[in-house]
Amino acid sequence: MYLIGIDVGGMSIKGGVVDFDGKILYKTSIPTTEKYTEDYSISEDIKKVIDLVLEGAKITIKDVKGIGIGQPGSIDSKRGVIRYSNNIALENVPVVEELHKYFDVPIKINNDANCAALGECVFGAGKGYNDIVFVTLGTGVGTGFIIDGKLFEGRECAGAEGGHMVIDMSENAPSCNCGRKGCWEAFASASALIRQTKAVMEKYPDSMMHAFAKEEGKVSGKTAFACAKKGDEAAQKVVDGYIEYITAGLINLVNIFCPDAILIGGGISNEKEYLTNPIQDAVNNKRFGAKFNPYVEVKTASLKNDAGILGAAALVL
Amino acid sequence: MYLIGIDVGGMSIKGGVVDFDGKILYKTSIPTTEKYTEDYSISEDIKKVIDLVLEGAKITIKDVKGIGIGQPGSIDSKRGVIRYSNNIALENVPVVEELHKYFDVPIKINNDANCAALGECVFGAGKGYNDIVFVTLGTGVGTGFIIDGKLFEGRECAGAEGGHMVIDMSENAPSCNCGRKGCWEAFASASALIRQTKAVMEKYPDSMMHAFAKEEGKVSGKTAFACAKKGDEAAQKVVDGYIEYITAGLINLVNIFCPDAILIGGGISNEKEYLTNPIQDAVNNKRFGAKFNPYVEVKTASLKNDAGILGAAALVL
Repeated sequence: MYLIGIDVGGMSIKGGVVDFDGKILYKTSIPTTEKYTEDYSISEDIKKVIDLVLEGAKITIKDVKGIGIGQPGSIDSKRGVIRYSNNIALENVPVVEELHKYFDVPIKINNDANCAALGECVFGAGKGYNDIVFVTLGTGVGTGFIIDGKLFEGRECAGAEGGHMVIDMSENAPSCNCGRKGCWEAFASASALIRQTKAVMEKYPDSMMHAFAKEEGKVSGKTAFACAKKGDEAAQKVVDGYIEYITAGLINLVNIFCPDAILIGGGISNEKEYLTNPIQDAVNNKRFGAKFNPYVEVKTASLKNDAGILGAAALVL
Repeated sequence: MYLIGIDVGGMSIKGGVVDFDGKILYKTSIPTTEKYTEDYSISEDIKKVIDLVLEGAKITIKDVKGIGIGQPGSIDSKRGVIRYSNNIALENVPVVEELHKYFDVPIKINNDANCAALGECVFGAGKGYNDIVFVTLGTGVGTGFIIDGKLFEGRECAGAEGGHMVIDMSENAPSCNCGRKGCWEAFASASALIRQTKAVMEKYPDSMMHAFAKEEGKVSGKTAFACAKKGDEAAQKVVDGYIEYITAGLINLVNIFCPDAILIGGGISNEKEYLTNPIQDAVNNKRFGAKFNPYVEVKTASLKNDAGILGAAALVL
């Protein structure tokens, strides 16, 4: 028997056939349609991907234990409904019900960051831990929480939005997509890092970040990290500040959950120990009751680009 | 059968005999000793209080189902040990083991804010709810979380410290006792309110807060609220700012837990609707996915001064 994991994103819908050890047998993707309507639901595109991966892996739906779907936005995982998603404009889409017309196997849907947290716990860097705080540093900041081996979603699956935790109430704090100001996401996302990088570059015209960005064609989440590693002071300033933002939110979550481990995923997590070492130090020293409370390990998430597919597949395990 | 609840505080150790409906039959207290030593453990004073309440209620230990203890600080509730407490200087005190020498009934100990949350859930304003975020606004800011009817303490009972969530990383944010800067506690505690009140009073020598404080003998948590109700603009400024701080932290927690209800306890909660109404509005409008996610009610906690005893008693239910 196999699992099918579907990873819905703003650009594409990825899908894969996964075995029970988290090995992907076959994967593929199709572009996300510009705008879904009542006549053409996102479920139709998800069905297409499922058909494609079944064919690609040379299996039939009878070989499948279940289908899991990871989807950005607020998901009612109990009823199998997308409450809403803002990057792909969707409201109240009963995806699970719609897909059950085509597939007579268990189908689950959940928030993409929740899926990634679960995926890491089952197949990745979180194996062996019972309590995990997972954070993905990408376009936004997504969080997922595993408590006592189970995904914690908040009442009616409407919680676990740690990225929308205000960490800076000062007047000139950046606005967040959620409507508040000074959310963790507005400081610790890759987009925020790019904003912070540009601001420092403007102040330091001699920084090697200018040449680096020119060569790369743009300022990216790598600019500051790459130049800091080469000794550029302005870049180091950016990195230090950015890590302080990440750490502030993570310690807030440690003080609430006291997990076995913090797992950091998303594009920025490619910086690995360069990122996790200073965060580990800060968690060790600054968390509440640091001297007395149990150790919390800071690690890089391991599933990388396949986190979405594997995490979604883990929903039906 | 009855329950015994013990409420350990910096000034006194309170105790009460409680029935299964949360009615206190008899209660009393003794002062907290200045400094406990290895030769004279806090358990000895707790024993004294237990003996006093048994005598006062005219029952014996055979009539008691169990003893619950609420204690400030970091508590290992599984092993029954006070890891540490800073207002009463204690480190690694095995209270439950020590008390079992005297009393052969179930004995539980937990953090005082956790107890208060549980007490409200079982006997107070949280009755009928499964998921609660409880916050006590007193000398500090304590939080307690009920998830699916059960107390959530974090791994190894070392979490649930929502008061130590940084909500303002700006440079001039006030320091917190925990070692960080800008924690929720440093903005939303009664002590913080007093500091905020004094700062505004200094800027507004004509505010009626000056006369009010003179009459009361000091600036207190009531000063700004009382004068704002009488139309004093400077006082209203204090209250508005303070409520914004409370709200910021609460919405952070709503975005993580999505509880049925937020319960506000502690001295400041005496302001009732004056406090809860604007907080309710803000939660309704500013939480993540406000338009789509389930309603979260904001209420005043109801157990007041007995919250400590009743919450501790609820531990052994």
